[in-house]
Amino acid sequence: MAAKKRAVVLLSGGLDSTTTLAIAKTEGFDVYALSFDYDQRHRTELDHARRIATALGAKKHRVITIDPAVVAGSALTDTIAVPKSRSEQEMSVEIPVTYVPARNTIFLAHALGWSEVIGANDLFIGVNAIDYSGYPDCRPEFIAAFERMANLATKAGVGGADFTIHTPLIKLTKAEIISKAQSLGVDLSLTHSCYDPTPDGLACGQCDSCRLRLKGFKEAGLTDPIAYA
Amino acid sequence: MAAKKRAVVLLSGGLDSTTTLAIAKTEGFDVYALSFDYDQRHRTELDHARRIATALGAKKHRVITIDPAVVAGSALTDTIAVPKSRSEQEMSVEIPVTYVPARNTIFLAHALGWSEVIGANDLFIGVNAIDYSGYPDCRPEFIAAFERMANLATKAGVGGADFTIHTPLIKLTKAEIISKAQSLGVDLSLTHSCYDPTPDGLACGQCDSCRLRLKGFKEAGLTDPIAYA
Repeated sequence: MAAKKRAVVLLSGGLDSTTTLAIAKTEGFDVYALSFDYDQRHRTELDHARRIATALGAKKHRVITIDPAVVAGSALTDTIAVPKSRSEQEMSVEIPVTYVPARNTIFLAHALGWSEVIGANDLFIGVNAIDYSGYPDCRPEFIAAFERMANLATKAGVGGADFTIHTPLIKLTKAEIISKAQSLGVDLSLTHSCYDPTPDGLACGQCDSCRLRLKGFKEAGLTDPIAYA
Repeated sequence: MAAKKRAVVLLSGGLDSTTTLAIAKTEGFDVYALSFDYDQRHRTELDHARRIATALGAKKHRVITIDPAVVAGSALTDTIAVPKSRSEQEMSVEIPVTYVPARNTIFLAHALGWSEVIGANDLFIGVNAIDYSGYPDCRPEFIAAFERMANLATKAGVGGADFTIHTPLIKLTKAEIISKAQSLGVDLSLTHSCYDPTPDGLACGQCDSCRLRLKGFKEAGLTDPIAYA
């Protein structure tokens, strides 16, 4: 049997990245999962990522430490309050204070390096431009620009490897992502979405991320299996 | 007096990045210097970078640790021999084994994050497409693609900050870079270029980087002030 193709999958431990990992597996890739510790407020997500990588059969899972100084000034990394109970209208008008400087650029740059090291040409990221927090580095035009840059940046790219950044969720609603995960048999009780969990790791239910998640489950006609504070 | 504009300058401790830092200062920027520890064979360059940042008056100097796993497989990071005494012809035909996966993408991604954190719109990198080692991520087309991506990736970029990646050395020969450094009063005895220094930190004089440096000094009609093994 020929060796499977390898793919690097960014795995935060949330709904979207977990579903993306499951999709990469379904598409026949051996998955190399990559998570990041940037001293985020919701660092508990890394424990979820570890359990998910094991449960979904990632070949390898690596947690990379990012120097917090280069991603500072966000409500997710500093002592800035995470907004709660914002309406959909409020969520849609601007880039929120939970934006983290250049986060997906830094994450994908590491993924690109690791891809080249392990001989993978495929990178997966669970960005979504429908039910999302309004971050610029989740939009299709950012992904396309990164992919173009990646193919100019690397020995493999210049040599014809043709790196592809897969974004299988980009056009799905949160409800569709949840239904997709369900159809792939993903255990969503393993996932973590909250930006501002309790010290015990319970989701707050009020931040933008919790609200998008709960709305998605409701629209999908399903019950969210995780515990809320 | 109005506050000076800030710029993030990538500083390896070599000739090119040191001259680039001096140019950024001359152009009126407050310089925030950024270096990287990726367990490189020539890690001694970081001590040089620290001394250079102080000597040239950087406002701040930060050394970021990169997980060596994502940049592995290079002669600069693994137990692969650094090529010695290659001819100019040999140096020009292919990407050498000293290529480090996605290095400048990872470096610039961190620089972009830090820029956004400190409110800088200007990034400086001492890449050079004339007397260089043939790395794809030193070419103008890579820099242009990164700049375009950066302006789509970030809150500041989307908000109109217009990030610029400055490459003041891109079209200069090594001799011209050395002359430029000289004219700016840069103490080049502080710099380190060798890929494979002795345990005492002396330059080998044989690797591509040493040979390009020595050739540059010769063509500039100057004597290299550093010690060789």
